Amino acid sequence: MDDKLHSLRHSAAHVMAQAVMDLLPGTKLGFGPAVEDGFYYDFQLPRALTPEDLPAIEARMKAIIKSKFPFQHTELDIEAARKQFADQPFKLDQVEALARGEMGEHGDTAAQAATSVSIYTHDSFVDLCRGPHVASTGDIPVDALKVMSIAGAYWRGDEKNPQLTRVYGTVFATKNELDEYLWQLEEAKKRDHRKLGKELEIFVLDEEVGPGLPLWLPNGGVLIEELEALAKETEREAGYVRVRTPHITKESLFLKSGHLPYYADSMYPPMELEGVRYYLKPMNCPMHHKIFASRQRSYRELPLRVAEYGTCYRYEKSGELFGLMRVRFMQMNDAHIYVPEELFEQEFMGVIALYIKYFKLFNIDKYVMRFSTHDKAGLGKKYVDNPALWEKTEEMVRRAMTNGNVNFVEVPGEAAFYGPKIDVQIWSAIGREFSLATNQVDFAQPLRFDLKFTNTNGQEEMPLVIHRAPLGTHERTIGFLLEHFAGAFPAWLAPVQMVVLPITDRHHAYANQVMARLKAENFRVTLDDRSERMNSKIRDAQLQKIPYILVVGDKEAEASAVAVRLRTGEDLKAIPIDQFIEMAKRLIQTRSLELK
Amino acid sequence: MDDKLHSLRHSAAHVMAQAVMDLLPGTKLGFGPAVEDGFYYDFQLPRALTPEDLPAIEARMKAIIKSKFPFQHTELDIEAARKQFADQPFKLDQVEALARGEMGEHGDTAAQAATSVSIYTHDSFVDLCRGPHVASTGDIPVDALKVMSIAGAYWRGDEKNPQLTRVYGTVFATKNELDEYLWQLEEAKKRDHRKLGKELEIFVLDEEVGPGLPLWLPNGGVLIEELEALAKETEREAGYVRVRTPHITKESLFLKSGHLPYYADSMYPPMELEGVRYYLKPMNCPMHHKIFASRQRSYRELPLRVAEYGTCYRYEKSGELFGLMRVRFMQMNDAHIYVPEELFEQEFMGVIALYIKYFKLFNIDKYVMRFSTHDKAGLGKKYVDNPALWEKTEEMVRRAMTNGNVNFVEVPGEAAFYGPKIDVQIWSAIGREFSLATNQVDFAQPLRFDLKFTNTNGQEEMPLVIHRAPLGTHERTIGFLLEHFAGAFPAWLAPVQMVVLPITDRHHAYANQVMARLKAENFRVTLDDRSERMNSKIRDAQLQKIPYILVVGDKEAEASAVAVRLRTGEDLKAIPIDQFIEMAKRLIQTRSLELK
Repeated sequence: MDDKLHSLRHSAAHVMAQAVMDLLPGTKLGFGPAVEDGFYYDFQLPRALTPEDLPAIEARMKAIIKSKFPFQHTELDIEAARKQFADQPFKLDQVEALARGEMGEHGDTAAQAATSVSIYTHDSFVDLCRGPHVASTGDIPVDALKVMSIAGAYWRGDEKNPQLTRVYGTVFATKNELDEYLWQLEEAKKRDHRKLGKELEIFVLDEEVGPGLPLWLPNGGVLIEELEALAKETEREAGYVRVRTPHITKESLFLKSGHLPYYADSMYPPMELEGVRYYLKPMNCPMHHKIFASRQRSYRELPLRVAEYGTCYRYEKSGELFGLMRVRFMQMNDAHIYVPEELFEQEFMGVIALYIKYFKLFNIDKYVMRFSTHDKAGLGKKYVDNPALWEKTEEMVRRAMTNGNVNFVEVPGEAAFYGPKIDVQIWSAIGREFSLATNQVDFAQPLRFDLKFTNTNGQEEMPLVIHRAPLGTHERTIGFLLEHFAGAFPAWLAPVQMVVLPITDRHHAYANQVMARLKAENFRVTLDDRSERMNSKIRDAQLQKIPYILVVGDKEAEASAVAVRLRTGEDLKAIPIDQFIEMAKRLIQTRSLELK
Repeated sequence: MDDKLHSLRHSAAHVMAQAVMDLLPGTKLGFGPAVEDGFYYDFQLPRALTPEDLPAIEARMKAIIKSKFPFQHTELDIEAARKQFADQPFKLDQVEALARGEMGEHGDTAAQAATSVSIYTHDSFVDLCRGPHVASTGDIPVDALKVMSIAGAYWRGDEKNPQLTRVYGTVFATKNELDEYLWQLEEAKKRDHRKLGKELEIFVLDEEVGPGLPLWLPNGGVLIEELEALAKETEREAGYVRVRTPHITKESLFLKSGHLPYYADSMYPPMELEGVRYYLKPMNCPMHHKIFASRQRSYRELPLRVAEYGTCYRYEKSGELFGLMRVRFMQMNDAHIYVPEELFEQEFMGVIALYIKYFKLFNIDKYVMRFSTHDKAGLGKKYVDNPALWEKTEEMVRRAMTNGNVNFVEVPGEAAFYGPKIDVQIWSAIGREFSLATNQVDFAQPLRFDLKFTNTNGQEEMPLVIHRAPLGTHERTIGFLLEHFAGAFPAWLAPVQMVVLPITDRHHAYANQVMARLKAENFRVTLDDRSERMNSKIRDAQLQKIPYILVVGDKEAEASAVAVRLRTGEDLKAIPIDQFIEMAKRLIQTRSLELK
């Protein structure tokens, strides 16, 4: 959020507070900041609010805005402030806290005890506030303003304090932006991956299996198989080899890799067998390094690109689990590339190219590569203590991305402990941001695992390692794709690609012929021969987001055709079956986003 | 082993004992039984034996055989036996044990104290022995006899007793049978999956990862991917759906399934998270049942065939681990079929058909379906206590196999705890037996999981469950296939399908053109452009069992051809590249056993 939007929203929060006080005299004020998607204000109210109160608050706000009251800034000494807020106990509490130097205006840590406080006033409303604000309430666009919802909150977020009522609102610079935001909210609800996951039978969570451990239903199984087929095909073409590695391993391997003790909090507890502690793997890297090190390697084999759809296990607190987005068990499009320094740039750009390829395929047009580098203060703590290697690899990545014209932002202090990383952030079709895949450079693990190859001079050399997972985990990627496509997947990915609907019982024979033809072509096709009305069968198919709805009756049987309707409602009319097969096959094989 | 072979081998053991006593006077005799592959005799010797002594023993045995000494049976009372074996301390020990009723002739439990013992004599040799024997040493075929090897053993197998020298021998009814056995032994050594697994870079075991946890190298990764592709294709055609399920789950689920406490010894120890115990899954069934039960089911959906290449974890003692054959982590060609009773026979035979299909594909021409049923005594202990259901399901399986003309043997008392099962035993190309896949009927878990569907009458009915895994686990199946094919896999399965060998540096350009063509066709092809001699490159490719060795020089470049040599050594001469591609593609796509 830029500064302008921030002061607009903060100003609107003041206006909302005035409106509530006007409507409900005796209201006591808590805090009222601007936040990510708008603003809120916390109140202690003379009566409970209901959603029905919100339009009145909004109407009152608009009246205040239209009056164009200027915002005025004053400094009051502590004694004057105490008088000013004598009947506002929470503001008074805050004045005292500021006076004691305990905290700043919004509960943040203060540098020192305040001798005066900052006040903003408009019309009759006075608030303890650092500002800044817009010049006048009239600068708030009335048509881009909305009071959104009511929630509960404790004073200073502490449940030992009184409970207050939090009213959320939002405001944008223009009505268009507000409308887009409201549409996105509405769409996000409709596209919620947990809701769609249930409706489209993609996955279930089962209390008896455990939290964060999704069971993938057959439709989810199709998505997984198709994503894996895509990854395997793409990776084969890019010269990767595939391995399989165990999911459990001795403690000593993770001590060697450095995951223990650094990463222990995110790992499952150990199991002891015959006096040895075993861990579920939180990452695949140590196993892949073991494969690299399983025999002497020559420069002829490098870059060696070792891929595996690896299963990883991470411990997340049950309160932090969220649908497919945060789970305890994940299947990762993982690979480790062992590369000599002089081939690094080329190889790194090859990996970036994979990301871009997938973005195109999934119609992801907005993305950013977030390049996380080390900070010197963290060396030896958050980061492996090797300043020269950090500088060198970061410079290699920076140069590769600059030379390759990749859109990236550099974020110091967020690197992985063994090297710089790139987090790829993408935006879904409704503009929500997801952090999906990472791409990391590793110079610490080759040292720890003593990885070597014989270079062109016949000498031993250490490779760099690139960790990469462009398709992230099935869990998070499918969660994202559910929202992104609202469940209406491209035909190649759709769990059911087509459904055959015979018009009456008389047409079952022909419907079965059509089924046999389509099955022979390996389409995922179902027959809906229930004795429901045709319209309701079509609607069911549309709700299931089945790309092609094929109605068959006398006319179609006679012409060896199918009447094709898309899930969008578009009617392609009767098409000869051969022609339909040719079209669908072509679109599926090319993994097209189009249905015709 | 039949009785005739048994008495032949037991007689040969006596002859070997006499031969050793003749050659090494003062030898004390232990036990000398017939065993699975021949016979042995334990001796306390005046000097250590070396392999160089074995031919002399064999020669002496042959002389004894040629003398045609009759075997004579006598009963001696205990006192006479004590005298007879006065200078044979181990025989005397055995006489005393028999007299006390502690054990029978070969250390087995005796019914009661003996008052006399059975003795067999031939020539000068007398042994304490129950028989039976052949009539005379002359009945032992000299040309089908071989003294094999030396090992150590404790008297009565107890390490507190004196250590004896065990000499192994074998004898068959005919020389042909001996030759075949010796060939099989030799082949089994060459085809040892641990040896081939290392030479062909299929898998490694790594001390730091842990015992029983193979790491699959890229070549092993190809085998796995190809087997999975085969299973998925076959199962798709047979109407299966695919799911994915978590590998860890709450203790309560395994209590519900009955794996706990029954199966706890074979499971990994639990991990505790937030006060709940989680286990690694030893089997996939409970998860699949959860998927079946995730919503209301109708008869229209049945049989529901739920497939997953599921990963299971079993605890085996480290002393019992063996290469790929006994591991702690396995990837299983699993599926559970939920079927109404009236469709059971048809569905069960469909599963059997899958097995047969795979046997053909892998050229497995000898197999037996071992039908394990319950025994009444085990009800409520080894077996779910529901006699009527046991009878009914066993009868259904028996009828299905009889009607389907399936070759099966019935083995009472070896069923799984939740129902009858079929273990499929197969023989490798060199005649070794493997127990690979199982197929089980389950009527207990549907009850435990309260599985139901709405039948055609609109009533709730419980399905039967068939557990099946025709391709077993990757670990054991690939171990078997390594031996079966001696690493020379059919082209569709071969990790590297072809190698291109340019004759000189001048031919690198054409070799690269050929590589590009072959890669574009998705063959797994490598280029051997090392500056080694052509013959040594061909030999290397043959050792790697690469099906097609493609030599390219001037003639081939001119004719757009490749000179094709099979790994068998067969020379197919120059073939136009298009024609070679067409042939290889056809053989690979049809998963042929042939290379041309």
